[in-house]
Order: sequence, then structure tokens, then C-alpha cells
Amino acid sequence: MEYRKIKDEDDHDVASDIESLKGKSHTVASSNIAMATLGVGSSERINWKRKGVVTCALTILTSSQAILIVWSKRAGKYEYSVTTANFLVETLKCALSLLALTRIWKNEGVTDDNRLSTTYDEVKVFPIPAALYLFKNLLQYYIFAYVDAPGYQILKNLNIISTGVLYRIILKKKLSEIQWAGFILLCCGCTTAQLNSNSDRVLQTSLPGWTMAIVMALLSGFAGVYTEAIIKKRPSRNINVQNFWLYVFGMAFNAVAIVIQDFDAVANKGFFHGYSFITVLMILNHALSGIAVSMVMKYADNIVKVYSTSVAMLLTAVVSVFLFNFHLSLAFFLGSTVVSVSVYLHSAGKLR
Amino acid sequence: MEYRKIKDEDDHDVASDIESLKGKSHTVASSNIAMATLGVGSSERINWKRKGVVTCALTILTSSQAILIVWSKRAGKYEYSVTTANFLVETLKCALSLLALTRIWKNEGVTDDNRLSTTYDEVKVFPIPAALYLFKNLLQYYIFAYVDAPGYQILKNLNIISTGVLYRIILKKKLSEIQWAGFILLCCGCTTAQLNSNSDRVLQTSLPGWTMAIVMALLSGFAGVYTEAIIKKRPSRNINVQNFWLYVFGMAFNAVAIVIQDFDAVANKGFFHGYSFITVLMILNHALSGIAVSMVMKYADNIVKVYSTSVAMLLTAVVSVFLFNFHLSLAFFLGSTVVSVSVYLHSAGKLR
Repeated sequence: MEYRKIKDEDDHDVASDIESLKGKSHTVASSNIAMATLGVGSSERINWKRKGVVTCALTILTSSQAILIVWSKRAGKYEYSVTTANFLVETLKCALSLLALTRIWKNEGVTDDNRLSTTYDEVKVFPIPAALYLFKNLLQYYIFAYVDAPGYQILKNLNIISTGVLYRIILKKKLSEIQWAGFILLCCGCTTAQLNSNSDRVLQTSLPGWTMAIVMALLSGFAGVYTEAIIKKRPSRNINVQNFWLYVFGMAFNAVAIVIQDFDAVANKGFFHGYSFITVLMILNHALSGIAVSMVMKYADNIVKVYSTSVAMLLTAVVSVFLFNFHLSLAFFLGSTVVSVSVYLHSAGKLR
Repeated sequence: MEYRKIKDEDDHDVASDIESLKGKSHTVASSNIAMATLGVGSSERINWKRKGVVTCALTILTSSQAILIVWSKRAGKYEYSVTTANFLVETLKCALSLLALTRIWKNEGVTDDNRLSTTYDEVKVFPIPAALYLFKNLLQYYIFAYVDAPGYQILKNLNIISTGVLYRIILKKKLSEIQWAGFILLCCGCTTAQLNSNSDRVLQTSLPGWTMAIVMALLSGFAGVYTEAIIKKRPSRNINVQNFWLYVFGMAFNAVAIVIQDFDAVANKGFFHGYSFITVLMILNHALSGIAVSMVMKYADNIVKVYSTSVAMLLTAVVSVFLFNFHLSLAFFLGSTVVSVSVYLHSAGKLR
């Protein structure tokens, strides 16, 4: 549960890594030159390569995230406040954005696109994703009155469908029918891979439980799609500036979450109570995953992000077989096959 | 188990129904006229309609077959010899073919295409499907030393893949990549829909168990595809003649099966020992399903047959909710969704 809360939060980690962003700005420049001199073909290849690299990075980071969780569970329970960890993840990403910006200012000078100051018109939308996540995380406390934790894991796969639907409605991007088929299969495959002997209990979920699960899926999907819209609205604007403002509001809303959910614990036991080496590793991993999400939003889209994190879930299970002697179920093999076919369909069904 | 054995056998039920065959020959004639006078468009529509009708008939008959099984299980165990029931199914279909032929001879006279006498060259391939099924049913007795009955039900879904592969190799018909994706999904979806808390045991199947399951899937797939090849090799030959010869060998091989498997029971307790009203209903149903399979082989193909019987399995479960108060599992919903998407992909992925 602790893991999931951190993970849900970082869905809007539109972060930036100093080195990769430096590399990125070069690549963007060279891709522009390529487009001008060599034609679109070469630039498309660069785009594809970049898309591939950031998608793989997100997959590996998400997968190692889950492995850290299993490790931390094996090592014993950590009684830290999840809200403080979330706050630190936002702070770390914010710091990385600023660090990246200072380097860029030093190399390229301050321009209209990379200056930190902003207008009300630009910044007014930035609090929205963070606010949506705060609301969703608060709802999460109430849904457990209606659904148990394994049931909640199953219902979380509704996120896949909600992201696809909102991606279509809000970003007005089209998926082909084959790609929609793939998306439904992705949802079914992920759920199948998670099936166990208690999964059927989720079918007894009451109407309020279903309603909350659907609302949470919509909030999460909306936050992801909205973040993509913000990042892509001003293509020339430096992503570190966009990230900085996103994370500033992320920090603010997480501070509110600390007050609402963990005020007593923090006041009595201190901000860092219960922290351990593994907590620090998890915070680092979440910040890096946030950077990867940012890259995927910039160079690909929410659909690729959903595929990437879904494949990561399967990877985690396979790696766990070797690391923790996990036993894979028949349902896992079936679900993985369905997910693999779904990835194929997403690529084969591309609109021309 | 009893049900399955009958069902496995009737995969080569290239049967014929008097009325529907009379209708068929008229339709073939009118479709030929249509092709000549109105062009291919109209004849294609007729073909599609016919294909749809026979496919629906097969789905409904297969589905009601399974419901008869549940009913018979509820009513108590019937200790009849399955081999005698299989023999009677073949005999009934043989009789129906002859009856259809006598009507055709009366109406149209005896021609080269509808005369019963045959050449060695034509008839030599007819024993092959029946022999394959006999061999497969004998193997079935040995596989239960390695796999339990629910595990066998799971492994039977390998038939779907083997049919697809052999259809491609033997009949040299092409499926598009999207259709192959659909076929893999059909296999996964059917297996998912059958998952229960004991399903994982099938993963512990030993190498001989797996080998036998794969050999049985290949035998079953080969028999189905070979039957289609026989029926379609001589398009002008009357299907009742083709069926007659198929069923004659079916009777012969089933007589061998009685001697091998149930000689003592039949000798001591009589041929019809343990028969009841429901046994008779099941034999009738199997003969009718055989007719439907025959029609699907003639107007469609093995792929359509596999889809049809798979959808029938899902239909059975849904109907059982109302008839027998069955509870559907989450795995069933997921598997059904995957099968539905797979049906869509088979149609959407058609090669132009």
C-alpha cells in the first residue's frame, strides 16, 4: 500500500535529469538540423530512437521500483509517513530541475524559453495535476472501507481504460480500432496476470466501492493526460521550467497531505521517523522514475506510458522468480501472453 | 470426462441432415446461377449468409451439448460405455446421409457426383480422420496417469493452436498477422475463462504428460484439418456421399474401440447397459452437432469451427448461471472479454 501511494503520486512526475536533458537539448537541436538538411526521414528515426530509450528507461525503473517494494517487505515493515516521502520525491525532482536550468543558463544564456519567470496564463494550469492526485490519494483512504487491498490492486487496472478514454477525449488523439482492441486486452491481460484465489471477492464490491474505484481511475487518468497537455502545449518552452512549476505545486499539495494525514505522527515522532536505507533508495528511484515519465510524456504519450508500466509489472514478476523464488501462476503466463499480443497490436494497428 | 470423450470423437462429424442438405443443394444451384447472372457480389452475400447460419447452429448445438452434460451430472452418474455411444452417433449420422441420398436420387436421379460407388483413389483417404481419433482416444486413457481431469481440460486448449498451425501447413491457407494474434488470444481467453484455484497444478505436468498433450492436440487438429481437405478436394462431389464414407470408417474404428476398451462391460452387461433418456438425448445432440460441423467445414473452415465451439463454451457458462445458479468468476469475465476481442480481430484482420 505504501508503495502504491508513492507510485500513484509520481504519475505526474514530469521531472528532468540534468545529464539526459543536456543530451536532449542537443538531440533536439541536431534533430532540427537533420530535418532541415536530411529531410524528415532521419529526424523521424531520431525521434523513434529517443522514444525507445525513454520507454525502456521507464520500464526498467518502474520494474525495479516494485522489486524494491518486495525487498522492503522481506526486510520488515517500515513505519515512515508516506506523505513525507512523497514530499521529498517532489522536492528532489524540483531541485534537479533547477540544477538542470542553471547549467542550461550557463551554456546557452537566459532566453524567453528557458527563463524561470512565468505569466499567470502559463502557470494557472500547473496546480491542476497535483490537486487531482491529492484528491485521489485522499479518496484512497475511504475506498478501503469497501474494497480490500488485493481487490484494490485489481480495480486499479481501470486506470488503463480511463487513460485511453481521456487521452482520446482531452488530447483528441485518435487510436485505430486495432489499437483500442489492444488497449482493452492490456487491461484484461494485466488483471489476469494478477489473479489469485481471492480475486473473485472483488466481484462482490458494493456500488459505492465501484463508484469510488471509477472516480479514482478517472482522476488518475485525467491527471496523466492533463500533464501531457501542459507539457505539449508550449513545445518551445524548456521542459525544466515546466517541470519546476509542476513540482513546486506538487510540493505544496504534498505539504497539505502531510498536514491532513500525518500531522500527529510527524509532530510527535519527527519528519524522518521510520526512515531507513531502503526508504532513501525508494525515494531516489521514484524521483528517477518521475524523470522517465517526464521524458515519455515529452517524446511519446500517455498510451506508451501505460504500456511501459504494464510491461514493467510483468518484468518484475519474472525477475522476482530469480531474486525471491517467486512461483509464477498459470494466470500470470496467460496474462503476460495477452499483454504481449496487446503490445504487438498497438504497434501493428498504427493509423497511417 | 464422458462428455469430453464423445465430443473429441465428433470433431470429425462430417454429417448431413436431410432437410438442410436438400436446402443446401438448392442454395448451391441458386448461388451458381446468381454468380452467372448477377455477378459475384450477390453470390458472396449468399455464401456469407449460409456461413453465418451454419456457424450459429454449431455454436448453439455445442453449447446445448455442454448443458446436457451438466444436467446429466446433476441427475447422477450414468455408467454406460462411451464407446458404444460413439458408435451409435456414427451409425445415426451414416443413416442420415443415406436417407438424404435416397431423396436426392429420387429428385435428381443418380449422377456421377451423387452415386454411392467410389474409386479406391477417392476412398483411400477417408479412414484417416477416424483412425487419428481412435489413436487420440486411446492416448487419452494414458494421459490421466500424468494429468488430472481439470488439468486435461486446460491442456485441451492446445487444440486451438494446433488447428491453426496445421490449417496453415496442410491446407496452405493464409491468416493475416492480426488473425494469428486473434488466434493466440482465443487460446489464452478460453484457458483464462476456465481458470480455478486448482489450475496451477497443470504447470507441474511432467515431460511425458506435456508430450502426450501436444501429440493429442496435433492428432485432433490434424483430423479436423484433414477432414476439411477431404471434403473440399472434390467440390462437385455430393457431400452425403463423402459423409457416408467418412462415417462408415467412423463406425468401423469405433467398433474397434468397443473391443479394445469396453469388451468386458458390453459382453457382461449388454450393449445398452446404463443407457437413459439423457444418454439418448446426448447421442441425438452429438449427431446434430456433427451435421453442423460438416456444414461449417463445407461452407467455412476449421478456424471458424474453433471460434464457434469456443464461443459456445462461454455461452454455456452464461446460460448455466440462469439454469443451474452457476457463479461466474472474474477469470471468466476476463477470458470472455479476451475471446470477444479475438473474434473481432479475426474479422477485422481479414486479408484483402
